[in-house]
Amino acid sequence: MAGSRITAGIVATGSELLAGRVRDANGPWIAERLGRLGVDVVEIVLVGDRPEEMDAALRSLSGVDLIVTSGGLGPTADDLTAAVVADLTGRPLELDEHMEKVVGDIISRFADRLRWDADALAEANRKQAMVPRGATAIRPAGTAPGLAVPPGDGVPTVLVLPGPPREVHAMWDDAVASAPVQALLERTEPFLETHLRLFGVPESEIAATLRAVGEHTDLAPLEIVTCLRDFSLEVDLRRRPGDEAAETAHDAVVAEIDARHGAAVFSRTGQTIDELLFDLLSGHTIATAESCTGGLLAGRLTEPAGASAHVQGGIVSYSNEAKANLLGVPQDVLDTHGAVSVPAVQAMAQGAIDRFGVDVAVAISGIAGPGGGTEQKPVGYVCFCVRTADGTEIVRDPVLPGERGDVRERSVVLAMHLVRRILTG
Amino acid sequence: MAGSRITAGIVATGSELLAGRVRDANGPWIAERLGRLGVDVVEIVLVGDRPEEMDAALRSLSGVDLIVTSGGLGPTADDLTAAVVADLTGRPLELDEHMEKVVGDIISRFADRLRWDADALAEANRKQAMVPRGATAIRPAGTAPGLAVPPGDGVPTVLVLPGPPREVHAMWDDAVASAPVQALLERTEPFLETHLRLFGVPESEIAATLRAVGEHTDLAPLEIVTCLRDFSLEVDLRRRPGDEAAETAHDAVVAEIDARHGAAVFSRTGQTIDELLFDLLSGHTIATAESCTGGLLAGRLTEPAGASAHVQGGIVSYSNEAKANLLGVPQDVLDTHGAVSVPAVQAMAQGAIDRFGVDVAVAISGIAGPGGGTEQKPVGYVCFCVRTADGTEIVRDPVLPGERGDVRERSVVLAMHLVRRILTG
Repeated sequence: MAGSRITAGIVATGSELLAGRVRDANGPWIAERLGRLGVDVVEIVLVGDRPEEMDAALRSLSGVDLIVTSGGLGPTADDLTAAVVADLTGRPLELDEHMEKVVGDIISRFADRLRWDADALAEANRKQAMVPRGATAIRPAGTAPGLAVPPGDGVPTVLVLPGPPREVHAMWDDAVASAPVQALLERTEPFLETHLRLFGVPESEIAATLRAVGEHTDLAPLEIVTCLRDFSLEVDLRRRPGDEAAETAHDAVVAEIDARHGAAVFSRTGQTIDELLFDLLSGHTIATAESCTGGLLAGRLTEPAGASAHVQGGIVSYSNEAKANLLGVPQDVLDTHGAVSVPAVQAMAQGAIDRFGVDVAVAISGIAGPGGGTEQKPVGYVCFCVRTADGTEIVRDPVLPGERGDVRERSVVLAMHLVRRILTG
Repeated sequence: MAGSRITAGIVATGSELLAGRVRDANGPWIAERLGRLGVDVVEIVLVGDRPEEMDAALRSLSGVDLIVTSGGLGPTADDLTAAVVADLTGRPLELDEHMEKVVGDIISRFADRLRWDADALAEANRKQAMVPRGATAIRPAGTAPGLAVPPGDGVPTVLVLPGPPREVHAMWDDAVASAPVQALLERTEPFLETHLRLFGVPESEIAATLRAVGEHTDLAPLEIVTCLRDFSLEVDLRRRPGDEAAETAHDAVVAEIDARHGAAVFSRTGQTIDELLFDLLSGHTIATAESCTGGLLAGRLTEPAGASAHVQGGIVSYSNEAKANLLGVPQDVLDTHGAVSVPAVQAMAQGAIDRFGVDVAVAISGIAGPGGGTEQKPVGYVCFCVRTADGTEIVRDPVLPGERGDVRERSVVLAMHLVRRILTG
């Protein structure tokens, strides 16, 4: 039966999701993981904490092979997912004594903080260890165990997970390894995936490229998802192993993208620009000189653990005085060309090299808006200089689209790509 | 009929949402806006681009008063929401000639970029201007008009919006003003809302406070949503105008929160710490000295337009050399106490005051992890100093929970609250 289509729906519960306070993080994460396992996610549903809403959502998904829920587990009274699932699947809740002990040990550590008395504790403990008959309990990462419930009676396999993303991530491997989920996964195979990442190509160009390929090759067997994320274009190609038509389509798409946009492809493995740059910076030292991005580039370069091996630091020279005093930008450059100019960022980059003693520096100065634009230097006009201690440099001064936040974030990403370029020659 | 309960469901379409590539931004945004108008959002559904998935999602929501869709509009072939909605509501699609002209003008501006010929253009144009009979077209902010479709035949009122968040935001007021949506809203009234924001109180404490109030006051008539966001606790209270029981519950909750956690309440209007700080910094100048946060605090302080009025800049002193050379931290402080120490952040803050000539400086140095922790200074140990030019200072050195990213972001928020505290005396 390998290779048949397995579909899934995801139900995330939590009133805060419906109040618009927070975005659901679990749905997309679970969807991506299921996708890798070869499972097609057809729907993600967000509902409140009331049992009838949960029940209705589960029933509306009865056509899928697998339902994954997140949230609505835990020791407080409004966490009712296990009971709803037991009811839906017609499986009575039974005490899992092993899990009662596991949960008891965990809850007792939280008890003081929750200010519960012994009775409330024992009750919460028992509630957490109740498992629908025939279901597999999944060891908790927080206080709530998960559940994997086999299919039956018109109800698909149901995997019940808690709400906190950290717990979902920690429990995922056990959940996938549980007997009910494994029984499903045996019927399919993981997709073969290609993850192309392009910088500097608009989505409309890729759409035109795909249309061109489609004129001579059937693309239907290939799953193609294009997506703009972090100002880069992600093109993900997914196919079933052994599907020759999908393989042909895949090869045709990759060949055409290489032919038309080859120079813009910076990753073929899904590696992010952050990961790429981290590797490239090995053996180098880097510092930043930022104006309109206000420290966001330095913040991003120091995001990965181990960044201190190459990041020495940076100067946020938001005011003109800071540009002159802290980075040594000559006053006549500021007077003649302005703080947002190519000569200014060149001087800023050199200032960072001198002050931090690094071999690569990157400088950004621009007009993020909404005010401050002129006809010659409109909002979105941003100057970049990446310079090395031995005198190589790359300079750019594009007008970037978008509002203040977009201009700042796009500038950070563009700067990272310029650093990549100077390091790869 | 004012004051009756109006329910809504939201359907967002897009295969990229189900592939887990991107998080849906429209669902939460629309939910928040509907909530303010007095509408209860009971479900948010994310589906793919196939008409049958869209149709099934719309049918599963037939019990609500209003369905809002986002995505699946636009000139390309796989954008089918309008057709699906026309089919579902039994309203034939008819050409809206006024909208055809509006859309034609807009599309012609995009035509070159999309590389379409005249025929493809005219067809896309017509497709965009097709409106289900009796529906109101909503003027596009991008290329796609929205639709407001009156209820009928077991189908609720349907509001159809495009996918790009910017377009949704721009079209929202017109959408709400459309006759079909207004007919619904006449049956309800906007909620009365109180938005408390607390810093430094764990969610479990608020839960205990609410339980205590619940022992003497019926809280059922009051809608209470608590939510941790940006390391602050949001407590939002919502009630129908004129509901006395809800008013009593509201007053009891606010009084008890004030009594137990009054010092932690930093906003009663939903104002964020960023907005508060922006106002407080008026007339002051500020600079940052950051180590483990790597520029994120400066990046955040410069996020609002107009930040240049008070932010002079910052120094990211990631290496010890940078702390000594650029901020003047004495070598013997680094040798004796270490770079992560109270004396180090005191010297960093003073260095920022001296170098930027500001009247407030904030310094952060800590162990973000995952490596670098010791028994005395574990991962999460972060030192803060906020100092003013006239010599006032606040110093803190907590051990913050969480992983590297959490520690860094939490440090930024804590630093902002310390600045708030020094500015409010």
